[in-house]
Amino acid sequence: MSEIKFAVLGQYFHCPIKGDFEYAQQALIQVDNNGTIVSVMTEADADFHTQVSFFSSKNQLIELSSSQYLMPGMVDLHVHAPQFPQAGKGLDLPLYDWLQDYTFPLEAKFADMDFTKQIYPSLVKSLLANGTTSAVYFATIHKDSSVELARECLKQGQRGFVGKVNMDEASQCPPFYIEHSTADALKETEQFVQEVIGLEGNEQQLVSPVLTPRFVPSCTSEMLQGLGELAQKYQCHVQTHCSESDWARDYSQQMYGKTDAEIYRDFGLMTNRTILAHSIFLTPADHAIIKETGASIAHCPLSNMYFANAAMQSREILDNGLKCGLGSDLAGAPIPSIFHTCLDAVNHSRVREDGTSTYLPADTRGESGSRISFLESYWMATVGGGQAIDAKVGLFQPGFEFDALVVDTAVSDSNIFIIDEMDSAKDKLEKIITLNNRQNICKVWVKGQLVINK
Amino acid sequence: MSEIKFAVLGQYFHCPIKGDFEYAQQALIQVDNNGTIVSVMTEADADFHTQVSFFSSKNQLIELSSSQYLMPGMVDLHVHAPQFPQAGKGLDLPLYDWLQDYTFPLEAKFADMDFTKQIYPSLVKSLLANGTTSAVYFATIHKDSSVELARECLKQGQRGFVGKVNMDEASQCPPFYIEHSTADALKETEQFVQEVIGLEGNEQQLVSPVLTPRFVPSCTSEMLQGLGELAQKYQCHVQTHCSESDWARDYSQQMYGKTDAEIYRDFGLMTNRTILAHSIFLTPADHAIIKETGASIAHCPLSNMYFANAAMQSREILDNGLKCGLGSDLAGAPIPSIFHTCLDAVNHSRVREDGTSTYLPADTRGESGSRISFLESYWMATVGGGQAIDAKVGLFQPGFEFDALVVDTAVSDSNIFIIDEMDSAKDKLEKIITLNNRQNICKVWVKGQLVINK
Ligand SMILES: [Zn+2]
Ligand SMILES: [Zn+2]
Repeated sequence: MSEIKFAVLGQYFHCPIKGDFEYAQQALIQVDNNGTIVSVMTEADADFHTQVSFFSSKNQLIELSSSQYLMPGMVDLHVHAPQFPQAGKGLDLPLYDWLQDYTFPLEAKFADMDFTKQIYPSLVKSLLANGTTSAVYFATIHKDSSVELARECLKQGQRGFVGKVNMDEASQCPPFYIEHSTADALKETEQFVQEVIGLEGNEQQLVSPVLTPRFVPSCTSEMLQGLGELAQKYQCHVQTHCSESDWARDYSQQMYGKTDAEIYRDFGLMTNRTILAHSIFLTPADHAIIKETGASIAHCPLSNMYFANAAMQSREILDNGLKCGLGSDLAGAPIPSIFHTCLDAVNHSRVREDGTSTYLPADTRGESGSRISFLESYWMATVGGGQAIDAKVGLFQPGFEFDALVVDTAVSDSNIFIIDEMDSAKDKLEKIITLNNRQNICKVWVKGQLVINK
Repeated sequence: MSEIKFAVLGQYFHCPIKGDFEYAQQALIQVDNNGTIVSVMTEADADFHTQVSFFSSKNQLIELSSSQYLMPGMVDLHVHAPQFPQAGKGLDLPLYDWLQDYTFPLEAKFADMDFTKQIYPSLVKSLLANGTTSAVYFATIHKDSSVELARECLKQGQRGFVGKVNMDEASQCPPFYIEHSTADALKETEQFVQEVIGLEGNEQQLVSPVLTPRFVPSCTSEMLQGLGELAQKYQCHVQTHCSESDWARDYSQQMYGKTDAEIYRDFGLMTNRTILAHSIFLTPADHAIIKETGASIAHCPLSNMYFANAAMQSREILDNGLKCGLGSDLAGAPIPSIFHTCLDAVNHSRVREDGTSTYLPADTRGESGSRISFLESYWMATVGGGQAIDAKVGLFQPGFEFDALVVDTAVSDSNIFIIDEMDSAKDKLEKIITLNNRQNICKVWVKGQLVINK
């Protein structure tokens, strides 16, 4: 039987039901040596106070103050790790120029392990400090550099899902940043999978490999075929971009006469461990494929505002019960915070609902009924993200991993202004979602391991 | 002749030209005892080093580190001061419920001076800490509480423009939150103007009164008439909401057969010291009136996403040369930072350009060519805002007030990640605009007075 490592005493928020939330004013959460939640008690439980005294006497009690809130760790389903140095620059450019002038030359630099080691530690640290306990990363085409990112996640204790990027279609990739050959790339990818699984210190699989065809246009059909076979062989995670823009959607139709979701399915790339970034231009048939295969969507609202040409059908996707979490899409968007992504998800849905053009009558301007709520976006950031990565994270329930953070609303330089007599629990949660900054996050645990402690 | 109070040595950004920026790698800015910039020198100037040594020897030199950037203070043209405790809550509600259930009951509480003194100090501190050196406030209908806000700005050294709100139209105001009578309200408003001007310590008019009809629907025509006369008599600032939503626009047409801009003009409320919040549904005739009178627009993109029913015509307004700055619209939007408002202004324009509906063909989805750039939004936040408040702020030039802040990208908990060898000056500025948080702001001056110092 596992032993208790520590217990946390304090108030918490989480969202067991999509669109709703649960608040416990005083709870005791026991975490075992594997980082798993063993029990969640409240004052209603008969031996609550006995247990509190017990852990207190053993010096295993972590007691939160009245301005501190325990919350599930955030899940970021879509991060372009090598683009971290580019976060916040060039976003005025059209996507093509942005990729050619900024992104591809930058990604190419990760052939250099020194450069890799200069950048990735700061990235992982920044995400953890913003409360991202699980991150799903696109790395670069370079195997060793990509393994290094996985190693860095392990070192800093982040639940990392890391993909060596595959791109081999010469007409769509710059000559300085493309696989040498499809066959070699597939071989290297398989090695990458094995190396990440076997990393020293990764016995509990805190870090996982992800098969990562960049998107349809940058891959040959041989590449997609080969990656599909690896997905079946290793049952590992898959990530890619899906129907992100008009151009991408049209490209797939021209090349394959199919949608992205159909293409990925036909190549064996759609599994219940597949994460589809963006997924803007989905057809009803795509919805059915995604639902049937159990694949998930990574909703990246801020980068959608810049590059997707439209707003995601977030209302329909939630209502249809598709698996969906949130992604920062660093650095197609600049902000390394899933709290901020929650805000953007609501914002984009609100703009979608109302429309934008003052030259149109109100009733033809937007798409009525398409808004999503802050609680829905926060559910995506935690529970939805956990489902997408196929991990038991996002809730404070026995059997779940203890991936959690403490938000302190009373730190100096806090933008969160709470008045206990005037704010309901829901008010407090919404204030934290909208106004949280990284300085408010004073503790972060991943799998019961304290990785940020201020 | 004025004496030099101190000189700042370091790099700075500002935007003398709309849509462009200027960067000085090493400059010396001399500030006199009145808080006015006396000279701006760079290394190109012959006696630069002599001057640096001179101020250094007199212990009057403030030297910035290589990770610190001097930037103009931010101007927030639209803040609902009493709504500060509500920032971040209830934003899922329709505007009517939000006002009736949250806002009006909250504003009514400011009849209580104890409550006033509990809230306003935190608000002013929060805005200053986020780099807002000038703020234009709607207070409440209560004269004494509104004067107290002005006093608080003065106390903390913020350039404050404070309005006692006027609302007297019984059909549109709740019985618990409405002026007792129009005549009394006008008398009280005139007293308010005089009291703010005469506040102890306000000899330099750091704090100014603002005439503040809430918006057309909440005011009788007698009220608008009376406020227009006060505007002419005192030549003071005016603020109100202008054509914010479909409903507000339609209301004015039904009641007056005119647009908001026409109504305000006809009542004498449109001057070169008038600030029109939102201004979403403007007609070409409105553009002409605003330009002719020299009135300004307070663009509040984030609250527009929630409540305005459409995106502002920001591209057209900038191209037409209308005066326009940014507003946080606390608490119609939750974020007390004009840096964040810059991001939202770009974002909303990008969504407007591309459109939102995936059910429409690309060429009918958005309004092509309507995007604005980060540099344009930052220009609005500084120079545009300075023009709107009719103050010489927003630029580092002799004769301008020294309202400034130091952004340090190397503080702990910074989300700004700069690599000197890879980032141009423009890159750095865009990173600061998009990723700045209040913990990055380590010094703030208003009129040469150091009001935040970490
Ligand atoms: Zn992406
Ligand atoms: Zn307003």
